[in-house]
Amino acid sequence: MHATEIPTPAPVIDRRTFEANLDIMTAAHPGATLRPHVKAHKCTAIARAQHERRHTGFTCATPREVLGMADAGLGDDLLLANETIDSRRLAAMAARQDDASITIAVDSEATVAAAIAAGIRRCVIDVDVGLPRCGCAPAAAGHLADTARAGGVEVRGVMGYEGHLMMVTDRAQQQRQVADAMELLSQAHRDVGGDIVSAGGTGTYDLHGDTGITELQAGSYALMDTQYATLGLPFGHALTIRGTVIAVKDGYAVADVGLKALGMDHGNPKVALDGVDVWFCSDEHITFGTGQMQLTVGDPVAVLPAHVDPTMAMHSVAYVLDGEEVVDAWPIDLRGWD
Amino acid sequence: MHATEIPTPAPVIDRRTFEANLDIMTAAHPGATLRPHVKAHKCTAIARAQHERRHTGFTCATPREVLGMADAGLGDDLLLANETIDSRRLAAMAARQDDASITIAVDSEATVAAAIAAGIRRCVIDVDVGLPRCGCAPAAAGHLADTARAGGVEVRGVMGYEGHLMMVTDRAQQQRQVADAMELLSQAHRDVGGDIVSAGGTGTYDLHGDTGITELQAGSYALMDTQYATLGLPFGHALTIRGTVIAVKDGYAVADVGLKALGMDHGNPKVALDGVDVWFCSDEHITFGTGQMQLTVGDPVAVLPAHVDPTMAMHSVAYVLDGEEVVDAWPIDLRGWD
Repeated sequence: MHATEIPTPAPVIDRRTFEANLDIMTAAHPGATLRPHVKAHKCTAIARAQHERRHTGFTCATPREVLGMADAGLGDDLLLANETIDSRRLAAMAARQDDASITIAVDSEATVAAAIAAGIRRCVIDVDVGLPRCGCAPAAAGHLADTARAGGVEVRGVMGYEGHLMMVTDRAQQQRQVADAMELLSQAHRDVGGDIVSAGGTGTYDLHGDTGITELQAGSYALMDTQYATLGLPFGHALTIRGTVIAVKDGYAVADVGLKALGMDHGNPKVALDGVDVWFCSDEHITFGTGQMQLTVGDPVAVLPAHVDPTMAMHSVAYVLDGEEVVDAWPIDLRGWD
Repeated sequence: MHATEIPTPAPVIDRRTFEANLDIMTAAHPGATLRPHVKAHKCTAIARAQHERRHTGFTCATPREVLGMADAGLGDDLLLANETIDSRRLAAMAARQDDASITIAVDSEATVAAAIAAGIRRCVIDVDVGLPRCGCAPAAAGHLADTARAGGVEVRGVMGYEGHLMMVTDRAQQQRQVADAMELLSQAHRDVGGDIVSAGGTGTYDLHGDTGITELQAGSYALMDTQYATLGLPFGHALTIRGTVIAVKDGYAVADVGLKALGMDHGNPKVALDGVDVWFCSDEHITFGTGQMQLTVGDPVAVLPAHVDPTMAMHSVAYVLDGEEVVDAWPIDLRGWD
């Protein structure tokens, strides 16, 4: 199958760039020191490529991702790095603990109680390291760990996602802030114990040399997006959304890659053509100024998403390209919540 | 089933508000003078409720929506108000023309040629009335119609979406601009002929009294969103995304309705609680300042999306509520592109 046969809009992964991205990250964080985050791609075929590089533990954001990874035989060591008190979903994860290793994050009395009630066997304490989201206060982590252990739940350690620091553009400042955030996590770890200190992401992947973490939770590096690209990281754009030009007008053109095919929370995407600027996206259209570019109805366009995670979540399959040949089609099989 | 049993995040439709919205629009545009746009909900159960109110023609944005509506037995008069040159999808629509009436928009020699080649029997000429997107110049419409007819395609008339005018807040100015845009469409219609002059949307639903259109293409009115709510229209918020509070901190709380559950192109959603303000959305979280509100982990929250169309496209099922009782679950069955 040739790229021109791909129905549009559709996510397209350049195999060489994708594999180079994985290799760069594996060199920086080999084996168990990387726990790839599947929320960035929601695709067990991509997880399998990460697993083949000896990253056998994975980070998940939803019970659906945990269960889908277990179904795919990738359940060596799954961490739900998120809180839930949904008793049905907790029970569904608990029921898989004989054939998969499942660890869930807890950050409050309520989430610890829900885990105990569901028969969850393993947890980490989620610690607030500065991002205003989930995570307990560092000083509260020890008590939560005691409560979990008293309820029969193994506490494997701590996690603390410094998401508020991913996009700091001054790297020296970012380095200092990451160190301060990880000091909070280390304090909590001293009270909690366990083998795991889990943190980090693509934007701070090279700033954890002496922060004391045992594993990095990075996801976006595999496919990348235009926001992460502003940081000057060594990872390339492996993902584009392929579209077809459906109208060519005076000074602009329209392709069939709209906002239902793109995560828009980080703003407009880019069109990978010289001198072209995106005007706006509608549900099923992208309108872009064509500059000096001569386009014709039917021409392919490659659109670079601003945010990879929600973009992948909007599609059911990603096509893998080697040059212009389609060499694989990977189901995006961890979507949704049930 | 009680509302508390709904797995979160999930779209929830308040039945009474939904039905009131439909009734208001039906009163303003009865029968065939409304051609509801299914892109706003992607749900054949909602389309059926519109059909029961004698709106038997529908507007679609994708071949998938056209084919899904035909599959659901709602194919009395389907208009693809969008351009495609995808020969496989055009052929798939052409193959359904014996059991459904399918009309597609064309706006260029290339799209007319693709329709003829696929055996499409009916089209409308899509006219540019000011929105920089698809649509031919008004003066070019007659020639395109001649080309289509010469190729054996019935030309049913014209369409011209004044999408650039939906959010004009000065209603007198909006009225004048809509009239000017529709004058362009009327010029084109004089050259094209046919029975259909199709235009408009929820934001201009009451401004077409003497613009000469024969039908309105409105969709958002059925469910609504916070952006359309700024216009002071009589349609109520029938749609919320139901979530669960998973963390309560000092001054803020976190619920499980993230940006993968919300169309974000119009910005942040709102949380339907007094004195609460949204700080930011992450993939699976919404963080909001709680003000004086006392919340507990496990509390339900209702999130009002900023843009209904992409929000619905992210979910597989919508729950219908009468008060706190779940009275139905409607598959969102027109999602995706294939």
